[in-house]
Amino acid sequence: MQPVCLVIGAGAGIGSNVARRFASEGYHAVLCRRTDEEGLKKSVTSIEREGGSASGFLLNAVEPDSIEDRIADVEANIGPIEVVVYNLGAQIGNRALTDTTYKAFERGWRMATFGLFRVATSVCPLMVKRGKGTILVTSATAAMRGNKEQHSHAAAMGGRRMLCQSLNAEFSGKGIHVVHILIDGSVDAPDTLGKMLGPEAFQKLREERGLEHDGLLLPAKIAETYFHLAQQHRSAWTHELDLRAFSDLPWWNH
Amino acid sequence: MQPVCLVIGAGAGIGSNVARRFASEGYHAVLCRRTDEEGLKKSVTSIEREGGSASGFLLNAVEPDSIEDRIADVEANIGPIEVVVYNLGAQIGNRALTDTTYKAFERGWRMATFGLFRVATSVCPLMVKRGKGTILVTSATAAMRGNKEQHSHAAAMGGRRMLCQSLNAEFSGKGIHVVHILIDGSVDAPDTLGKMLGPEAFQKLREERGLEHDGLLLPAKIAETYFHLAQQHRSAWTHELDLRAFSDLPWWNH
Amino acid sequence: MQPVCLVIGAGAGIGSNVARRFASEGYHAVLCRRTDEEGLKKSVTSIEREGGSASGFLLNAVEPDSIEDRIADVEANIGPIEVVVYNLGAQIGNRALTDTTYKAFERGWRMATFGLFRVATSVCPLMVKRGKGTILVTSATAAMRGNKEQHSHAAAMGGRRMLCQSLNAEFSGKGIHVVHILIDGSVDAPDTLGKMLGPEAFQKLREERGLEHDGLLLPAKIAETYFHLAQQHRSAWTHELDLRAFSDLPWWNH
Amino acid sequence: MQPVCLVIGAGAGIGSNVARRFASEGYHAVLCRRTDEEGLKKSVTSIEREGGSASGFLLNAVEPDSIEDRIADVEANIGPIEVVVYNLGAQIGNRALTDTTYKAFERGWRMATFGLFRVATSVCPLMVKRGKGTILVTSATAAMRGNKEQHSHAAAMGGRRMLCQSLNAEFSGKGIHVVHILIDGSVDAPDTLGKMLGPEAFQKLREERGLEHDGLLLPAKIAETYFHLAQQHRSAWTHELDLRAFSDLPWWNH
Repeated sequence: MQPVCLVIGAGAGIGSNVARRFASEGYHAVLCRRTDEEGLKKSVTSIEREGGSASGFLLNAVEPDSIEDRIADVEANIGPIEVVVYNLGAQIGNRALTDTTYKAFERGWRMATFGLFRVATSVCPLMVKRGKGTILVTSATAAMRGNKEQHSHAAAMGGRRMLCQSLNAEFSGKGIHVVHILIDGSVDAPDTLGKMLGPEAFQKLREERGLEHDGLLLPAKIAETYFHLAQQHRSAWTHELDLRAFSDLPWWNH
Repeated sequence: MQPVCLVIGAGAGIGSNVARRFASEGYHAVLCRRTDEEGLKKSVTSIEREGGSASGFLLNAVEPDSIEDRIADVEANIGPIEVVVYNLGAQIGNRALTDTTYKAFERGWRMATFGLFRVATSVCPLMVKRGKGTILVTSATAAMRGNKEQHSHAAAMGGRRMLCQSLNAEFSGKGIHVVHILIDGSVDAPDTLGKMLGPEAFQKLREERGLEHDGLLLPAKIAETYFHLAQQHRSAWTHELDLRAFSDLPWWNH
Repeated sequence: MQPVCLVIGAGAGIGSNVARRFASEGYHAVLCRRTDEEGLKKSVTSIEREGGSASGFLLNAVEPDSIEDRIADVEANIGPIEVVVYNLGAQIGNRALTDTTYKAFERGWRMATFGLFRVATSVCPLMVKRGKGTILVTSATAAMRGNKEQHSHAAAMGGRRMLCQSLNAEFSGKGIHVVHILIDGSVDAPDTLGKMLGPEAFQKLREERGLEHDGLLLPAKIAETYFHLAQQHRSAWTHELDLRAFSDLPWWNH
Repeated sequence: MQPVCLVIGAGAGIGSNVARRFASEGYHAVLCRRTDEEGLKKSVTSIEREGGSASGFLLNAVEPDSIEDRIADVEANIGPIEVVVYNLGAQIGNRALTDTTYKAFERGWRMATFGLFRVATSVCPLMVKRGKGTILVTSATAAMRGNKEQHSHAAAMGGRRMLCQSLNAEFSGKGIHVVHILIDGSVDAPDTLGKMLGPEAFQKLREERGLEHDGLLLPAKIAETYFHLAQQHRSAWTHELDLRAFSDLPWWNH
């Protein structure tokens, strides 16, 4: 049976690129995303066309049992989950405190923090039994410091980061490699940045900073590091690292 | 009208001691706690006996509208809230991942993170109008780093810390002083440590490390620093500081 | 015999204001600075005029034995040093790497890091014998994160911060309170900011951001917090805190 | 001309393993270490035997001009330095403050902080001209937090970390990739850990925690990550990451 790489949050940016990278090395990639069945199929097909093996599922991570059932189903019908990539963002754009509803604040937590807790609750016992497993968690600058109009995002991502550390403390010695991956900059991704900015502004940004300038994080390049992390020997594991474009400043400098 | 110091989480430890300290300087202290009406009355009476002015209310912070209604009521009937002390803990003791229910994890967030968000949503607009205000947030080691069996606590407190930073980023320039106060050690408090350990173990710990050893944080001494923070001139505000007993190691050394 | 508060780096900003604050509470303040004998005398006289007790000495902290001899002399002839304020800056302005000479880089270390090590080597054994003492260390944003053209300053201050933590780890339990005080913004001080900017630009900055705007840290207000720290009860000591003007952003937000 | 990977601090642990890894991919490895000419030759020969290309030089990094001259010589006679690995440790074992001489404290700084500054001063202008280059800096737990009896080590490594950040701030946008690599645990290395513990205790530790337990960081596995970092695409660079054995606790948990 092929080892499975389960990607939760498999949009056209980091998620599907990481899925493709693992698939290219023999993993069966399971791609889950909330909406856009067509985009999902395209990602799966594109992996298969390159000779990889993949499945795709729509999954609404804030719904009860959605994550739990998907994990159970994959384990039962596809194969043992060796790698989980938790790639759900919780960015809702800049909002002043009074424009941040209770609902938006709670939703941020459900996606960024609670969803990861549910994933861990489902897969960690399985991974402990098998003596190995990898949980790669995409994170954001807001996990390191709060900022203006980032109330929901910062609280949600700060919780996510501390959860990663507590998961690591309990499970690293049992063979589960938990990594908190700080994406500290804008990613050249149509499904997230593209949607936030709108098609025109996104294209303008790509022309000014992305493309040959390499000033936007390229998801395919990010995926190289995700894959490396999953291959690290257990005598030399990374728990936290940052990633940004060379031309960008790190969070502590702006 | 007296300025009001509203304490949410006014147990017999930090909460009531901070209330007393502010009352001794002319603030009207409003003490809120979830249970133990008798203990609440005792705290209020003891402040009044020392010449201070105080009120006490039972308040279940995880209930909808509880915080919002209390704040509205205090503003309408007692006076303008100049200082809020958010002192709700979310420690549920050490629990392995599989022993941490979804409910416990969510409750941690409701108390530690969402409760503060609700407080801020209610008081910040009022404080902005008045051009001043202080929000003192008690925090814990778990806000700085996750640890084994601290999944709920660390995620909740990590969210709280990042929220404090985002509140500060939006409101500091508008005259609201937000402080994240890291209580990095055990507090000599019957309502929290005492209840967690049970009366015998608590008394033993006090005899071995507390009392004349000063190895447990004394709430009355902590209150001195809370009060100092609220008096800092706006040209020299502190946003984050730690507090621990001299004989204890900081979180980064153990 | 009066307790002594020894201030190393007693310019017209933080240093002399902290000296004055401690003198106003009964300490004998010993002010040391490298140059400007006249300014030094003025600080001492001004403290005495307010009823305080003070002495002043020129001290070049990068010269061998200068610190050691001064400490020995104060202990022998003035009184036991209860509080040391290490207030030497090592800011040399913005300099690109190729404009930062080896000499400048080393000088930064001698003032910011090695000088504090020498102070600690001299006073800690005395304080351990007496079972108490306080070392208040002024620090800068550069201790928290390196930045462009801050090679010398950041390396020197980063060393200072880690030294403060290692001193705390060894000596806190022996009754010595070490505090790392992060001055995270511009101080309204003629001897440092004033000299760096020149009189005109300094005055312009004061008019635009300082004075009634309170957007520059006022040294007399900073001194209130230094004094509070030295009075904290040993059951509730702070090791690190930040200070900045309300209208300024913290280092993690710019 | 082959690209050069210059390793400063090429002992039998991380240094020579990283050199071998780069040599295996076509770099010419230049190994520099202070003593043990025989060990140095052995490392070089072993690389050559595997088909790689390497040179070895004795280099005392605390001597004036030693680093500068070596870099100039390599550039003139071997090839353009594409990657520098700064791997000098500055651990002097546990020493109480009064057992840490001024000389030892200064030596720590000369090796850990000033040496890196000298390297950067020499290679950065060359790398800027070429529009690319990589500086991989081995670091230690002491860069993140001071600890008891680590005065020299912590001050030196704290300075190193802040220097890495200031180098990154100036040179990342110019194509130089600076990475601060936190080795947060004991490395299975005869030249460092082996010498510090002595042969018997080292062997015992290896048997109890290392070897098939993978509880000591294996230098050959560390080298995989060093190599990956040097290959990261400039749109997705890492500036800081940690490495430790799976069975070890991170610095923030002990």
